Amino acid sequence: MTAVNTLKDKKTFNVALVGATGAVGEEMLKILEERNFPIKTLKLLASARSKGKKYSFRGQSHGVEELTEQSFKGIDIVLSSAGGSISKKFMPAAVREGAVVIDNTSAYRMDPEVPLVVPEINPEDIFKHKGIIANPNCSTIIMLVPLFPIYRKAGIKSVKVATYQSVSGAGAKAMHELERQSREFLDGKPVTREILPHQIAFNLFSHNSQVKENGYNEEENKMANETRKIFHDEDIRVAATCVRVPIYRAHSEAIYAELKKPLKVSEARELLSKADGVKLVDDRDKNYFPMPIEASGKDDILVGRLREDISADNSLALFVSGDQLRKGAALNAIQIAERLIR
Amino acid sequence: MTAVNTLKDKKTFNVALVGATGAVGEEMLKILEERNFPIKTLKLLASARSKGKKYSFRGQSHGVEELTEQSFKGIDIVLSSAGGSISKKFMPAAVREGAVVIDNTSAYRMDPEVPLVVPEINPEDIFKHKGIIANPNCSTIIMLVPLFPIYRKAGIKSVKVATYQSVSGAGAKAMHELERQSREFLDGKPVTREILPHQIAFNLFSHNSQVKENGYNEEENKMANETRKIFHDEDIRVAATCVRVPIYRAHSEAIYAELKKPLKVSEARELLSKADGVKLVDDRDKNYFPMPIEASGKDDILVGRLREDISADNSLALFVSGDQLRKGAALNAIQIAERLIR
Repeated sequence: MTAVNTLKDKKTFNVALVGATGAVGEEMLKILEERNFPIKTLKLLASARSKGKKYSFRGQSHGVEELTEQSFKGIDIVLSSAGGSISKKFMPAAVREGAVVIDNTSAYRMDPEVPLVVPEINPEDIFKHKGIIANPNCSTIIMLVPLFPIYRKAGIKSVKVATYQSVSGAGAKAMHELERQSREFLDGKPVTREILPHQIAFNLFSHNSQVKENGYNEEENKMANETRKIFHDEDIRVAATCVRVPIYRAHSEAIYAELKKPLKVSEARELLSKADGVKLVDDRDKNYFPMPIEASGKDDILVGRLREDISADNSLALFVSGDQLRKGAALNAIQIAERLIR
Repeated sequence: MTAVNTLKDKKTFNVALVGATGAVGEEMLKILEERNFPIKTLKLLASARSKGKKYSFRGQSHGVEELTEQSFKGIDIVLSSAGGSISKKFMPAAVREGAVVIDNTSAYRMDPEVPLVVPEINPEDIFKHKGIIANPNCSTIIMLVPLFPIYRKAGIKSVKVATYQSVSGAGAKAMHELERQSREFLDGKPVTREILPHQIAFNLFSHNSQVKENGYNEEENKMANETRKIFHDEDIRVAATCVRVPIYRAHSEAIYAELKKPLKVSEARELLSKADGVKLVDDRDKNYFPMPIEASGKDDILVGRLREDISADNSLALFVSGDQLRKGAALNAIQIAERLIR
């Protein structure tokens, strides 16, 4: 028996949020309320030190409970965003209890038994799950939603991307660090570091994930590997340069895509103007293109700077900004849940 | 008679700084002093509203004079950084007076009669001048100095680059704007705009130069066109995405280069470790790579993140940070002057 059968017969659901007090967890709570997700009961789970913390949901106060293996009795859907090691440790228990887990960590993304889903791209994969569905990495989602209409129409051989990633991807504490360091810098005080490996205020640095043997860091390898899995395309080649910039919460990406078949810029613009999950912001006369402050808090990924890649034949260049906490994380997970119960 | 003949016979020089009160002009003054440039007399020139402003140079106070067509009598070398229209208007007068102009604006860069020089790359072009030598755009210099050793060894067919450009490129006023907006934002006040077209504090935006018919803005087209001229290579294809980030004074660039001949990452690292004008900062274990705060105030361009471009055959990826006001502008111009008088 797979858990999906259980969900089909229900109209409202017992939902557990794992990592409820994190930046993504708090965003999930907001989005569940905004989208009126059919919740019967809501359980907020986090580590022991957050126990008792209160959140308001639909006008009612919900206290945070400590996450244990016994937390999942009667739960239908788990939205997990507490980090890979927490998911590895606790999600098997959730699955044993019959819940479907939508996991927003890297723990299961590349597991061949686990679907990796962006609802605008491969919704059909949702129903192949065996208890766990993985939510892709934020930078991957923000790149692929705008690339997918182009991919479907013209095919894509290879992608080169350079990211401008906000500190929200490193969690709420990193957002506070940007604020504290910025004040310190402006006040002429020594800049202190607690969370991030280098000063982020008025600086940038190569993404703070481990650099692997191929010279790419984990974030960059995720973008390459997850793209192949989501597109079901073992041939697409992705090279990423992931960089943290002093911005609070939306990621931007400069993308160069080498196509299989010719596609005019005007055709790409037309495709993107109608595509789900993206908003075209591409006014050359006004020099008005995607910006992270305008992408923040939005569901759509902003896409613009559409032009031929003049360094190569049959290639396009574009620039995107998307809210890392929403479509890059919480929203995508909840959209998966919505499809699951539809 | 070309002006270079006159310069050869002299040991010290009458130097004029045009745009002395700008961010680049002030940096020039510092570098002329640091490098002990053989100055006989120094004239600081700017618009009427800066007249009388004082600068200290080698312990002596120098007042700013108003720039006119009569400013250049007896001047040997003009270092001009007051903007393209000022150069167009006044530099012909300087040349008529027998001065050699090293022009740090876009006015003459693509003029076939004017050499465009990065001393580490094409110093021989300096001596082809007819009175004016052009200093390339900052983003071009910062990209080409680290690419040149690779270009010379293996050839480069094409380059894709995404920039992370500091506000210093838009002048001292833009630097003040970043500071003011950052304070406003942190204090919860409305963010005010005076110089830049969009909020720069905790934001980024596509470079604020006009977007041309090919979809690339002026800054991006400069990188493509100037690369061909400096390398004397009409076939090299460059696609750039130029972006302003909330950083004060060094530019960073994520670069993907398609080579003509195979070159191992280890060979590229070896070449760059010995190259003039660059410093290798490429520690994968410590996740320590070029950062703008470390490039600021330095003569060398920091280069790191050296790796294969896994999206293409025979291609390399790298990341660089360079001080836009020094090697990207003032230092490069003064290095040209040093070669000229050597």
